[in-house]
Amino acid sequence: MPSTHIVPNLQTTLTGPLLELERHLLDHQSQIESWFRQQFRATPAPFYASVDLRNAGYKLAPVDTNLFPAGFNNLAPELRPLAVQAAQAAVTQACPVADGVLIIPENHTRNTFYLENVRALQHILCAAGYETRIGSLLPDLTEPMTLDLPSGETLTLEPLVRKGDRVGVGDFFPCAVLLNNDLSSGRPEILEGIEQTLLPPLDMGWVSRYKTHHFEHYTRVAAEFAALIDIDPWIITPRSVQCGPVDFKKREGLECLAGAVNSVLEETARAYAEHGVEDTPFAVVKSDRGTYGMAIMSVRDPEEILSLNKKQRNKMSSGKEGLVAHQMMVQEGVYTFETLNGAVAEPVVYMIGARVVGGFYRVHTGKSATDNLNAPGMHFEPLSFAEACALPDHQADPDAAPNRFYAYGVVARLALVAAAREICETKPECAGAAE
Amino acid sequence: MPSTHIVPNLQTTLTGPLLELERHLLDHQSQIESWFRQQFRATPAPFYASVDLRNAGYKLAPVDTNLFPAGFNNLAPELRPLAVQAAQAAVTQACPVADGVLIIPENHTRNTFYLENVRALQHILCAAGYETRIGSLLPDLTEPMTLDLPSGETLTLEPLVRKGDRVGVGDFFPCAVLLNNDLSSGRPEILEGIEQTLLPPLDMGWVSRYKTHHFEHYTRVAAEFAALIDIDPWIITPRSVQCGPVDFKKREGLECLAGAVNSVLEETARAYAEHGVEDTPFAVVKSDRGTYGMAIMSVRDPEEILSLNKKQRNKMSSGKEGLVAHQMMVQEGVYTFETLNGAVAEPVVYMIGARVVGGFYRVHTGKSATDNLNAPGMHFEPLSFAEACALPDHQADPDAAPNRFYAYGVVARLALVAAAREICETKPECAGAAE
Repeated sequence: MPSTHIVPNLQTTLTGPLLELERHLLDHQSQIESWFRQQFRATPAPFYASVDLRNAGYKLAPVDTNLFPAGFNNLAPELRPLAVQAAQAAVTQACPVADGVLIIPENHTRNTFYLENVRALQHILCAAGYETRIGSLLPDLTEPMTLDLPSGETLTLEPLVRKGDRVGVGDFFPCAVLLNNDLSSGRPEILEGIEQTLLPPLDMGWVSRYKTHHFEHYTRVAAEFAALIDIDPWIITPRSVQCGPVDFKKREGLECLAGAVNSVLEETARAYAEHGVEDTPFAVVKSDRGTYGMAIMSVRDPEEILSLNKKQRNKMSSGKEGLVAHQMMVQEGVYTFETLNGAVAEPVVYMIGARVVGGFYRVHTGKSATDNLNAPGMHFEPLSFAEACALPDHQADPDAAPNRFYAYGVVARLALVAAAREICETKPECAGAAE
Repeated sequence: MPSTHIVPNLQTTLTGPLLELERHLLDHQSQIESWFRQQFRATPAPFYASVDLRNAGYKLAPVDTNLFPAGFNNLAPELRPLAVQAAQAAVTQACPVADGVLIIPENHTRNTFYLENVRALQHILCAAGYETRIGSLLPDLTEPMTLDLPSGETLTLEPLVRKGDRVGVGDFFPCAVLLNNDLSSGRPEILEGIEQTLLPPLDMGWVSRYKTHHFEHYTRVAAEFAALIDIDPWIITPRSVQCGPVDFKKREGLECLAGAVNSVLEETARAYAEHGVEDTPFAVVKSDRGTYGMAIMSVRDPEEILSLNKKQRNKMSSGKEGLVAHQMMVQEGVYTFETLNGAVAEPVVYMIGARVVGGFYRVHTGKSATDNLNAPGMHFEPLSFAEACALPDHQADPDAAPNRFYAYGVVARLALVAAAREICETKPECAGAAE
């Protein structure tokens, strides 16, 4: 397998259970793929998603499922045909006769990293055979604006307009409208009640969605899956509880939050003892809504919540575009023991429709194994194609790179099944199908 | 793009029209992909196919479309995930709730090259989540037989049995039955009237199918496509005429065959003059049925047909498994001007469902630009992934490898549309859809 990319080391002594997981996944591959197919027949996969994973060696769990993924520009170029093929299937499923896709991106104009992502998505959809244009929600955009990108490419944003029950740009009003905007600032009026197919649905914006609700679904999905292949569900499930309302600025709800942290830490300590893990439990506290990694902290002691200083409390009350952190999620912290050149690495897996189309490592040189890595200073290492999470190598060691990455693709798709059930709940015709 | 594979040189001075074709394909990519989607919506693609192409620099045309492709073992390993994804889609389309696939291979037990192909197909289908077993038509096989392969893998053949209207092995009677046997020796009784989905249908075996009929469809498809993107259809269409019955042993029908050769050569000479091509026209004479390259010859003069010696006539009357060459096809010869390390190279493109999943070069060190390369002495050079015929590079030269290979993927899919229409004709519910 020609591979020019580096594979991170797993810096932990306790990898017994994970090796067992990888071995189990290899042994049950046909059954697993067949089960996923059944799941996505019952509840169709979202158009796309990215899932952040943490790999502690003894535990491999998703910690964030993003239904408006950025970062498609980070996927290895060799993976592009896989994304194109998956996009053809996903658009066809949503709009069987569509010939065009309208992308509605975030309102960033200076974040060239993000704009390269939109350009990459546009490339993928064009190559899949869809005319693809960008309809911007920017309030003061009145005519097309072409931006130069660091890659040498350009991206043209056009003002989104509404005609009757359809949105579009210029004279382009295609059936498929792809949201790459997580709607943290609310449901845009212009998108309410449109007759086009909005992917994902408006109800999946962060204004309406709770992370803990996603993880409730995930916990059930993981339990079903664990029963299917006979593994301990704890290995793939992070304990997650909701707590709120919390107002950090006014110091309201902090006692309750400290209590939730305490309960998660105690539960994790019990599980660690049971599984022979000698690490110190920690909990991650973050907003139960929103996607950006600002309002987030790792704690090892409930006291830390009660003794937050003003600066820390201000940080915790700031969300993206002013979304105030009311409901919080307290989640069992999962150590990241993968390192790349000495820096901590966290895998991110990308899916289009029900297909894994690649992924990369989020690497942060200034962080430790318990830190959130979605923070300034991070950089990315694309996974190479041979390790695209899509295909294990049965003749190699269970922890060989393709097999570890296949495990990542499986766990990421469990989170995708959970997201599919979340979306299903918002649709009347889907009721009951998710159970 | 990391590539460890060699890309053949195009050894010709006249590449103007081909560059124009590649430029046209690049400029119309979205439209082309959208058109293919419409075509395969009207007439579904066969489960799989491989297409042999010849590239003369001024002309790029398919010369053989195989609906029972062998050679999956030759695809680059990096391409495997693309094949797996395409196989999931293709099986789902044929049998929405299938969890298993039965492969019926050729009756070879010593051709390890072929058996590696069956093993590769089994791998692809297993990875796609289907239990996959091999049901052999070998008449004297009464219990499972496990064969050791040069790759170190094993392949287990099981005797095919029929229970009522289903065929299977052991207690395995899945919905999807995949033929990898071209039925040159006839329609096996055991497969007649089964209720399972046979892919491709029994009517597509070489006993029922004529190459000239395929090329009639191809010529229409190519004309429609040429009109769509405004190119000269001659660039992608080989002239093909049927002639027969011919009995080489008894010297019957040779006058008629020489006449057909003469007409193809004259027509080609006219077209060469019109297109400024200075090469000497040649014609390829082969059996209008059958897939193997035995009964095949290149001729530059109709006299060659009339002056065949006994050995040559015997060769031309031998088909695979004794299929006698009655109807012949006379096809415009297309020069192969691609060379790899000085040896003549012919691209072969593989598709699963409507998707291009890779390809390789058939290379023959002992042959010239006009010879049939599917002959003893050939070897294979897998194309690398970045050049998987699936994705052009708009920023590169029109004849850069990814763009030349994208052109190959497009022309191969035109032959696939033709095959889809052939299959459609055999089904009552499809009548009219192919027009």
